[in-house]
Amino acid sequence: MADQRVGILVFPDVQQLDLTGPFEVFASTPGLSVELVGKSTQPLRSASGLILAPDQTLASALPYDVICVPGGVGVNALLDDQSILTFLRAQAETARFVTSVCTGSLVLGAAGLLTGRQATTHWASHDLLAAFGARPTAARVVRDGKFFTGGGVTAGIDMALTVVAEIFDQATAEAVQLALEYAPAPPFGAGHPTSAPPAVLARVRERGKAVRLAREAIISRLGAPR
Amino acid sequence: MADQRVGILVFPDVQQLDLTGPFEVFASTPGLSVELVGKSTQPLRSASGLILAPDQTLASALPYDVICVPGGVGVNALLDDQSILTFLRAQAETARFVTSVCTGSLVLGAAGLLTGRQATTHWASHDLLAAFGARPTAARVVRDGKFFTGGGVTAGIDMALTVVAEIFDQATAEAVQLALEYAPAPPFGAGHPTSAPPAVLARVRERGKAVRLAREAIISRLGAPR
Repeated sequence: MADQRVGILVFPDVQQLDLTGPFEVFASTPGLSVELVGKSTQPLRSASGLILAPDQTLASALPYDVICVPGGVGVNALLDDQSILTFLRAQAETARFVTSVCTGSLVLGAAGLLTGRQATTHWASHDLLAAFGARPTAARVVRDGKFFTGGGVTAGIDMALTVVAEIFDQATAEAVQLALEYAPAPPFGAGHPTSAPPAVLARVRERGKAVRLAREAIISRLGAPR
Repeated sequence: MADQRVGILVFPDVQQLDLTGPFEVFASTPGLSVELVGKSTQPLRSASGLILAPDQTLASALPYDVICVPGGVGVNALLDDQSILTFLRAQAETARFVTSVCTGSLVLGAAGLLTGRQATTHWASHDLLAAFGARPTAARVVRDGKFFTGGGVTAGIDMALTVVAEIFDQATAEAVQLALEYAPAPPFGAGHPTSAPPAVLARVRERGKAVRLAREAIISRLGAPR
């Protein structure tokens, strides 16, 4: 049987771990093949400086069984990018699973794909989902029909394992988890605003302030459905 | 103050998440800058097909404050690659921290850097550390002096956060953890041989058998110190 195909969107200033986490989960699953899809096949730079090379363009990509939209500061430029939004709407129509990691769900929202749906995103942008008519839902991975959205960055690994279990079965996902030795043991407990020390939360909010303000301004300009 | 510099080794058939996990942790830390170091600057393909582009060559790389060796099936070719081993020995002499993820520690071992030291690696290669005179230690992250080794693949995130706390302080590492929303919630509990269902463990062992046998043959040929 031919592999089922996973397409992951890639764009300048993507948060690379949003993309590389699910990439490794999907690509480690026998029976799945993974491609990166960009506006061109020109290599581009992630937010933290890793170079990523798209395999396909929006025009050359065939319909995927699973489409995945990662996040990062670069999503701001996608929220009113009609070529990206049109691509995602077309893919979503035929895909078995439409997925996102982190603020990738804002792009799905901007494409009009999350209206009335439960969804999640990075904690620092969580409330913004409502501007797209989605129902912000506090969970690491949120499923609503064929839409699977993950929380911030590292949640992409949990999201992708969840989707692999849906495509195949739990044992297939468990085998990938074991191969990737995904038995996480964070040295600290600060991974979420509900558990981080207040001073740490304040520091991260301050660091993300400019991106957040720019994002609010774009969304307000879009006049997205509320 | 100038950034402290992190160099991550990159090679054909590297397990990309071994590399991209720590990359994101280190590159998200203010005061650290990250480079990929390869045998040439020619882009190369990871074991799961992601293209990675080295920033520096073994010859052009300056001494790093932190050197990091990821793993993957590609490490087999590094275990007797004198240019890589000589590079790592030179870097280790001056680096503040010498680190590895997954089977990257076997390469540190082959360079003679782990003799008498506690270390860990991917569960499926854990016992092989002894062939290099290291003391295989069962933990997600193992510290021995300035040497920090992580377990398989995803353990690189935990290892890098541990090292960031050492370089700076706990709050700095916590801020990175929060920014990456690293509050993992694996959908299943199969991330380690001690917790995976026996049939899943058997499946993953079977799938990794050829790489494991080839690795044993190389190590036996090397006649590494025991």
